[in-house]
Amino acid sequence: MNSTPSPSSPQASQPETWSLQTIGIIHSPFREKFGIPRQPGLAPHAISRLQLFSDYARPECIAGIEGFSHLWLTFVFHQTADQGWSPTVRPPRLGGNARVGVFASRSTFRPNPLGLSVVELVGVEQGPEGVALVLRGADLLDGTPVLDIKPYLPYADALPAAKSGYAPEAPAARLQVAWSADAVADANRLQLSRDFQQLTEEVLSQDPRPAYRKEAADDREYGIWLAAANIRFRVTGQTALITGIDPRP
Amino acid sequence: MNSTPSPSSPQASQPETWSLQTIGIIHSPFREKFGIPRQPGLAPHAISRLQLFSDYARPECIAGIEGFSHLWLTFVFHQTADQGWSPTVRPPRLGGNARVGVFASRSTFRPNPLGLSVVELVGVEQGPEGVALVLRGADLLDGTPVLDIKPYLPYADALPAAKSGYAPEAPAARLQVAWSADAVADANRLQLSRDFQQLTEEVLSQDPRPAYRKEAADDREYGIWLAAANIRFRVTGQTALITGIDPRP
Repeated sequence: MNSTPSPSSPQASQPETWSLQTIGIIHSPFREKFGIPRQPGLAPHAISRLQLFSDYARPECIAGIEGFSHLWLTFVFHQTADQGWSPTVRPPRLGGNARVGVFASRSTFRPNPLGLSVVELVGVEQGPEGVALVLRGADLLDGTPVLDIKPYLPYADALPAAKSGYAPEAPAARLQVAWSADAVADANRLQLSRDFQQLTEEVLSQDPRPAYRKEAADDREYGIWLAAANIRFRVTGQTALITGIDPRP
Repeated sequence: MNSTPSPSSPQASQPETWSLQTIGIIHSPFREKFGIPRQPGLAPHAISRLQLFSDYARPECIAGIEGFSHLWLTFVFHQTADQGWSPTVRPPRLGGNARVGVFASRSTFRPNPLGLSVVELVGVEQGPEGVALVLRGADLLDGTPVLDIKPYLPYADALPAAKSGYAPEAPAARLQVAWSADAVADANRLQLSRDFQQLTEEVLSQDPRPAYRKEAADDREYGIWLAAANIRFRVTGQTALITGIDPRP
């Protein structure tokens, strides 16, 4: 007899299906996948709100949550949920060429389209729709459906010495960010807040371009939709130059 | 304009339902909820296997996973999934009296019965049913359905300074564990391995009794089903005395 489970453990002969409900929805400045930081915490000026729904929006459901500085969110990659999955993926961290197994990655194209992010809790709001949580550093698309919220427990969850294969450290900020005269004028005209300008720099400094664009000469202008603005930029060498900003609903 | 999301963000008017599939199942020595450590890592001698199913059991799906020492498992609290949820719960950490919101807890009685555990990856097995992962320290009931596996990334996931309300540190091992002469004879007769004996001590040292039993005199004999054994014990003062061990299929 041994602590290793015996073959007499119950076996499920085929996969079961579970029906889960959205408990709330994310409102964030990230209006499209392009430009979203690859992990939470890389854009600390990104402030999001998690609006809880109906029965879950009662204050009792979050009683005591302010005692926790960070929360785990389990959410659905709703934008790509109907695109299926692949046994292997090409993580951006490996330059977009090498393949690893989907379960050795955090790719959005998974058998179950579940995401997991730790976010900083900065406040609780009580509005006419019920309770909402104000979050910092979330890497979540606007409109993301959330399935669960759990408190972050450092004694169980913080394993700083864990070995993590091909992604041993945070992606370095790759680019300097510069503003053209036009972009400065746009920012003034649109009354962009200092926080929003910092968020813009955090996002561009990560170099959101596809991996295959980063190695060669690249003279195209890109646009990133952040909150109610379209940020246009070009990359030359190690600098992202913001060429202009257009309002966008 | 501000980085705070505007009220024009898309709103879902009512909760959506998501259909998710079991990708694999846990085989563990924990055959009942009673006695399972309250967080992963508290019983390092608990070795579990995650047997992947059908399409997910192909070696490609986990290529490169050995580079990671730890994994996140998202799973279903299947044993209590049909018991519903409550807006507030009484965490064992608060002695079972004080109530907190369900989202400020890791209670199993949640709107969506999802669990989240970090586990140590100790090996990969390839058998006739496909790929299985060998895990250490999991706090998962035998038969637990798993929905997702993700690599643990310390640069994103390890926040040792996070503030965590009413659960600032790991539950202390509360009890000494002693073996009666009968229990020693049973262990020899049943050929219990040294690892299994250590697992038994790890489980009992956490004092698995319900919170309301811990404060008063308690002369009852308890039984915990671990792997193929029923471990009987009594608690006197700060000592759990193993009174006997019976085989159990």
